[in-house]
Amino acid sequence: MDLSNNSKRIEALHGGDVYRNEVRLDFSVNLNPFPMPAEVADAMQAGLSEIHQYPDPSQQKLREGIASLEGIAAENIICGNGASELLMAAVHAVLPRKALITSPCYAGYAVALKASDAEITEYLLDEKKDFALDEGVLDQINDSTDMVFIADPNNPNGRLIEPGLKKAIIEKCEACGVVLVIDECFYSLSEAGYERESVTDNALHLRAFTKTFAIPGIRIGYMLSKDTELLNEIRKHLPEWNVSRIAERTGEAAAKILESTDYLKDSVHLIKQEREYLAGQLEKLGVRVYSSDINYLLIKCGSDLYEKLLGRGILIRRCANFSGLDDTYFRIAVRQHEDNEELINILGKVL
Amino acid sequence: MDLSNNSKRIEALHGGDVYRNEVRLDFSVNLNPFPMPAEVADAMQAGLSEIHQYPDPSQQKLREGIASLEGIAAENIICGNGASELLMAAVHAVLPRKALITSPCYAGYAVALKASDAEITEYLLDEKKDFALDEGVLDQINDSTDMVFIADPNNPNGRLIEPGLKKAIIEKCEACGVVLVIDECFYSLSEAGYERESVTDNALHLRAFTKTFAIPGIRIGYMLSKDTELLNEIRKHLPEWNVSRIAERTGEAAAKILESTDYLKDSVHLIKQEREYLAGQLEKLGVRVYSSDINYLLIKCGSDLYEKLLGRGILIRRCANFSGLDDTYFRIAVRQHEDNEELINILGKVL
Repeated sequence: MDLSNNSKRIEALHGGDVYRNEVRLDFSVNLNPFPMPAEVADAMQAGLSEIHQYPDPSQQKLREGIASLEGIAAENIICGNGASELLMAAVHAVLPRKALITSPCYAGYAVALKASDAEITEYLLDEKKDFALDEGVLDQINDSTDMVFIADPNNPNGRLIEPGLKKAIIEKCEACGVVLVIDECFYSLSEAGYERESVTDNALHLRAFTKTFAIPGIRIGYMLSKDTELLNEIRKHLPEWNVSRIAERTGEAAAKILESTDYLKDSVHLIKQEREYLAGQLEKLGVRVYSSDINYLLIKCGSDLYEKLLGRGILIRRCANFSGLDDTYFRIAVRQHEDNEELINILGKVL
Repeated sequence: MDLSNNSKRIEALHGGDVYRNEVRLDFSVNLNPFPMPAEVADAMQAGLSEIHQYPDPSQQKLREGIASLEGIAAENIICGNGASELLMAAVHAVLPRKALITSPCYAGYAVALKASDAEITEYLLDEKKDFALDEGVLDQINDSTDMVFIADPNNPNGRLIEPGLKKAIIEKCEACGVVLVIDECFYSLSEAGYERESVTDNALHLRAFTKTFAIPGIRIGYMLSKDTELLNEIRKHLPEWNVSRIAERTGEAAAKILESTDYLKDSVHLIKQEREYLAGQLEKLGVRVYSSDINYLLIKCGSDLYEKLLGRGILIRRCANFSGLDDTYFRIAVRQHEDNEELINILGKVL
């Protein structure tokens, strides 16, 4: 049985392939480096003790928890088996013929868009602006556009969208009848993001507990919008019991932690400190570092960096398969200080 | 926030609503009553200790394990977040305009078919034949049919399809270019089913570990077919990392257990014994029991049975929302002897 081609294709698309590499330190996936609260770990165990039950098909308690956290009604929330499921369900509901994404951006939008064979236009982000989204994107949105995907912050560079521009994009999409997906899965790990603002528009705001609690193996994401009709349409394209009992319990606990503790504030503090440490040290080593507001950094360096680090058990994200980038770009997650220090020490030797 | 309508709608569609009822004994969901092997519980724990990792997007080890169990190549397998995800992905890939289901049958096929707004024809099963599938179904399949769903055994009555008829349905569908989904999620819990036969045709055979190990909270199902082109098409409609790390580890262990131990044989033995006990006792109480080959029984009784049992903390499955049935039909799972005995004792009092 030949799985190698399929595996290789997928490995190239994302980071985190610890299954086909010997990895001691994984800098290729972007997860909150702050330790998970005991309450979330306890909730996972509680979920595991309940796996003889079907999950709640209406996700009532989970949606009520998120509603309270996000200051929105439960009917304005749909939950998914990771944000990736919601991306695809949105595409299945809209079936766009023409879609707009930025370049570079997270590969998952194009993967989801394959479900509708949409024609994809890429709006090129400017390297000179550190790949920050600029208002030129507004000219790409018109009545013939069916669907737009933007990320706040963008991946792999980590820059937030300037709030005025974000508002303008939302308004332009509403005016043109375009379904706008705003990927905010990392947003709450930024300084601007940890104070939540309620969603008051018709865009599909995609959020997840995966990054915030560093639990990508669990699969739990959600989508917020004022457009309940669109959410109901998307719900039709989600399978029954799509959120596992463990994810359900975990999400309920996660929403409570985010609402009632300083976990996010402490996380954002650690991330900022370590991002600045990493960026400063990398620049000292002569590496080009693009500005970032979040827990990962896009860098430009010699193309053999990936192999050099993997030889020492460190996995980073090659960015050659991001449209608009080449094999001299890499993405590095911000981890805890000890790990970051080790990365810098090894880079000092291999560069 | 009003979730009540949505919750009520979903409650009516399936059993297992322990979230909005006080339930001591749940006879409404059909799970293997045989205790879960320690290896599966251990694998779940191992998965939980790895939730900081993304699942393997290519599900390599999981598919290799299932391949070995099922005697088929790994490329002939796709894995899903429960069988329900695979049902919907198949509909998304085929986008049927005309679909055929049996009546009564599991409600999930119609739910999945809503994703394509297909026109659904129901082939009525005959109560006089205990709702067993008969060859009349063959006349309903023709060149204008896009997709057919059958269940072996059928739900809610639990009758297996006669092997010759199953073969004829597969052949007719292949001849007419119809995509055939055969739901075999319960099959291995039948006497005929626990000796696995390799899949050698182009139908989509749907199987799950959920029922076999009584772990519906985990979400892990798979689909087998010789038609790799169709499977690849369906894969396009599955989100990335759709099987959680916990489900992945659990599935790997489950496949190994099924391949190397007598777990299934012992399960089938217990189920047969308890099914016969339940059926015999129910008939003694004057309840009409339809013949079943599996771990659940369709019965016909007074319409107030549901409320009477719920008042004593026992949940059974009302079948009024199964097309072709009414509120005098109920489905009862076969549980462990002690539970079954308690049900019979209580029935003796309330009937």
